[in-house]
Amino acid sequence: MTKQLRQTTDPNTSGDFAPGWYVVGSSRALESQPKPVLLNGLPLVTFRDSLGQSVALLDRCAHRNAPLSAGRVVEGNIQCHYHGWQFDGGGECKAVPGLCGTAEHPARRVPAFACRDAQGWVWVYSEPDVDPGFEPYAIPCADEPGYLTIREHLTMPGPLDAVAENALDVPHTAFVHAGLFRKNKDRQPIEVVIRALDGGVEAEFIGEERPKGLVGHILAPRGGEVFHWDRFLLPGIAQVEYRLGEGSHIITTAALTPRTRNVTDLFATVAVKVAVPNPVLRTLFKPIAMHILKQDMEILRRQTEQVERFGAEEFASTEIDVLGLRIKKLLREAATGKQSPAPDERRIKMLV
Amino acid sequence: MTKQLRQTTDPNTSGDFAPGWYVVGSSRALESQPKPVLLNGLPLVTFRDSLGQSVALLDRCAHRNAPLSAGRVVEGNIQCHYHGWQFDGGGECKAVPGLCGTAEHPARRVPAFACRDAQGWVWVYSEPDVDPGFEPYAIPCADEPGYLTIREHLTMPGPLDAVAENALDVPHTAFVHAGLFRKNKDRQPIEVVIRALDGGVEAEFIGEERPKGLVGHILAPRGGEVFHWDRFLLPGIAQVEYRLGEGSHIITTAALTPRTRNVTDLFATVAVKVAVPNPVLRTLFKPIAMHILKQDMEILRRQTEQVERFGAEEFASTEIDVLGLRIKKLLREAATGKQSPAPDERRIKMLV
Amino acid sequence: MTKQLRQTTDPNTSGDFAPGWYVVGSSRALESQPKPVLLNGLPLVTFRDSLGQSVALLDRCAHRNAPLSAGRVVEGNIQCHYHGWQFDGGGECKAVPGLCGTAEHPARRVPAFACRDAQGWVWVYSEPDVDPGFEPYAIPCADEPGYLTIREHLTMPGPLDAVAENALDVPHTAFVHAGLFRKNKDRQPIEVVIRALDGGVEAEFIGEERPKGLVGHILAPRGGEVFHWDRFLLPGIAQVEYRLGEGSHIITTAALTPRTRNVTDLFATVAVKVAVPNPVLRTLFKPIAMHILKQDMEILRRQTEQVERFGAEEFASTEIDVLGLRIKKLLREAATGKQSPAPDERRIKMLV
Repeated sequence: MTKQLRQTTDPNTSGDFAPGWYVVGSSRALESQPKPVLLNGLPLVTFRDSLGQSVALLDRCAHRNAPLSAGRVVEGNIQCHYHGWQFDGGGECKAVPGLCGTAEHPARRVPAFACRDAQGWVWVYSEPDVDPGFEPYAIPCADEPGYLTIREHLTMPGPLDAVAENALDVPHTAFVHAGLFRKNKDRQPIEVVIRALDGGVEAEFIGEERPKGLVGHILAPRGGEVFHWDRFLLPGIAQVEYRLGEGSHIITTAALTPRTRNVTDLFATVAVKVAVPNPVLRTLFKPIAMHILKQDMEILRRQTEQVERFGAEEFASTEIDVLGLRIKKLLREAATGKQSPAPDERRIKMLV
Repeated sequence: MTKQLRQTTDPNTSGDFAPGWYVVGSSRALESQPKPVLLNGLPLVTFRDSLGQSVALLDRCAHRNAPLSAGRVVEGNIQCHYHGWQFDGGGECKAVPGLCGTAEHPARRVPAFACRDAQGWVWVYSEPDVDPGFEPYAIPCADEPGYLTIREHLTMPGPLDAVAENALDVPHTAFVHAGLFRKNKDRQPIEVVIRALDGGVEAEFIGEERPKGLVGHILAPRGGEVFHWDRFLLPGIAQVEYRLGEGSHIITTAALTPRTRNVTDLFATVAVKVAVPNPVLRTLFKPIAMHILKQDMEILRRQTEQVERFGAEEFASTEIDVLGLRIKKLLREAATGKQSPAPDERRIKMLV
Repeated sequence: MTKQLRQTTDPNTSGDFAPGWYVVGSSRALESQPKPVLLNGLPLVTFRDSLGQSVALLDRCAHRNAPLSAGRVVEGNIQCHYHGWQFDGGGECKAVPGLCGTAEHPARRVPAFACRDAQGWVWVYSEPDVDPGFEPYAIPCADEPGYLTIREHLTMPGPLDAVAENALDVPHTAFVHAGLFRKNKDRQPIEVVIRALDGGVEAEFIGEERPKGLVGHILAPRGGEVFHWDRFLLPGIAQVEYRLGEGSHIITTAALTPRTRNVTDLFATVAVKVAVPNPVLRTLFKPIAMHILKQDMEILRRQTEQVERFGAEEFASTEIDVLGLRIKKLLREAATGKQSPAPDERRIKMLV
């Protein structure tokens, strides 16, 4: 049905778009009035119906295609600004002002998308007019006792797979974030175990030292052993988990939503349990995280511009690109419905 | 011949472009010096020849394709700025500076378009190098005794068919122009008769009350019966005629010219005979008309953006969309040269 | 191999791109740090290797396609900003930080382009990973004793063939540069001999008077016989040579490099031997040359916009367009590898 919604040659959409639940905004920011969002180039409108439930429709009036998001919500229905047609949260036409007769009619429906409020975010299912049959991903540790939970929304200038690889990539940190995590000297070999998850892939880093530089000093002031996992889960969860020092636990879950082919919304949930007092952590977190993310945005912007200029990616990979190719494969298979058996567990050495 | 003038895949041109006379500007604004205009994406240059006649050529020098509109008129010929080639109002090459020999040559012609000054406007025939064999549309009541005649030029952000439908559509007025014409409450049913005209279509509204809101109060302060017709005539005339109260007559003729596929020039001639003194009318007219048109421009802009985003129109219509589909059909048939028999007269009910 | 570097449908590249040596900048401006250049839409990075030699690579890291020009040069190798991969001047991968094992690998190479410093300019050969087997064009009289040599870089808003034709065209000077060289009155016929050169074409103007207007007065204050040649040489040399008055000799060599399809870099070398003292000449040269070039840029911009608007060139030529069609033919044949026999010498008359 998605094919009917738009032209398949749309340059704003990605070819490798995996069906699933995507975050489109924070629950707190969705009030009764309409809020437009873009999901892989497709304009949707979210609003709250008469019960206060979040709902999502295609942002196009069935009548003359005006954007419903330019209208307003009247008693839980969204009213088009052009001729006043109204639609409920399920997409049914409820009013055609001026028409003698009933408004409801199959030709006057607007496609509707399953929508949920969960863990502070509004999630939308990517396919119209279906019940997905399962719920959105449950973000670990979010709002659990003992965890400080911080949420941030950023807009990253790159396609979903590039943003996910960047978020889960270790080797770039010594260059793009020189001085913050790792340095390009006195490197030691560690072991990395790459294993398949259900609908995803995980890299476990064994024998890693406490991150060098500023971030390590804040998170584990007294040093200690480090446990570190990077994970990707379909359709767009990128997760970095650290256990280090005496009971410190930091798990960052980025829900990635392709806004268009080359722009990805990143909805981050950071759950932190460390010795540092929460007010200090809150104060330090944002400037450091934004500094790191701006460096990543800059390199992603350049990478994306290059791929556009050359017309296609032309990547060479080595074994220390532990997750990038697997993420691409997972997305491609999910987008096309094909599936190959999960690869065996793999162990490699990396100098960090 | 139009096909030779440009690539047929030009995204600036509309597929459903009906041949005919189009207004490209006001006669008063066309002086001897060249003035460029765009007719459905095709650059033309208008100027006045040695007799003061308005003439129109393709705005492309036959030599190295420089825009003739960047040159100047020399003794009634247009001279290119690059190498000084000159062309008369019929497109003949009259000078090639530096060449030993005659300038005139079939390969050095520039396509010429029939051009007229009529009723305050410059009209151009859409096909090059032909005598259309008929004259431009005669605008009713313009400059007739007893009528105040007002002319305005606006640029509407939408394709011709959408602008024409918008100009002739009744149901949107209760929403886009809430409070000015009609309201979305206490609606009463009226009858609408839709009938074919020669090269057009007309809707007559029977039993309509005096327009509610401000505009009605100004035009017919003492109420009375209302006669109301909306008309579309090929290639781009949208006309709204009201007779109401004691001898009030207002006829608005919008000559629509596609500048590009999604931008339409609207050249309006409003002929008014009402009890209101002309100076008062003149004073009131412009701010009210501009207020209304800005609301229409805003919704047209949004509608056009949506159709571009989705790649195609996906319209559902009801019987109270009395002229929209007929306008599209007239334009498509005129553009393709096919013609189907005029539909029978049709009567519907509408709540206004 | 160029086909592998990018999509062949790239709108930034010209179809008629002749292989050969192209100037991409001045030698003085190329220091050790990376400098990006565009050669017919293809992003290259130039820098100096550990020996101080100018080198040119494709500006795309073999790993994740980040632009190498955003990185820096470390001991003569260029280091990518994203993951720190390093490449030498020949495109070999010399470092993959974090990888246990050797960095060099054929899949990790970056295409390299032959590069030379000659006569003040950096020249790059257009095809990757080949030894062209011949050296860049030797600019006549540059830096020779008795000649004042002036170098300028301008960016012209037009395709290479249009810029070359404009630079070598006599008839436009009476219009675009009215008053500076020639006037459109009291014209006298002269003879023009057009003859093929090896990989080029030349027009010799016989019987021409000293240029009228300001420029002639400066260059040959006492008048005298004029010898004048205009030349085009593949892949993009446009040359104007004047000998006039008592031993005056001016030879302007423009090395034209297509940056993109419609933008051409013009690297001019002007070698002048005249009676005017050098400091006066230097002072006068720049404002006059810039005035002339701005007029040419303006008309080239308009011409290029027109061709884009109409989708293709539609040129009519006469015999006084002495070099334009020949330049187009030379470029097309060089681009496609076809070659037709050189045309016979031709003589025409022109009024100047």
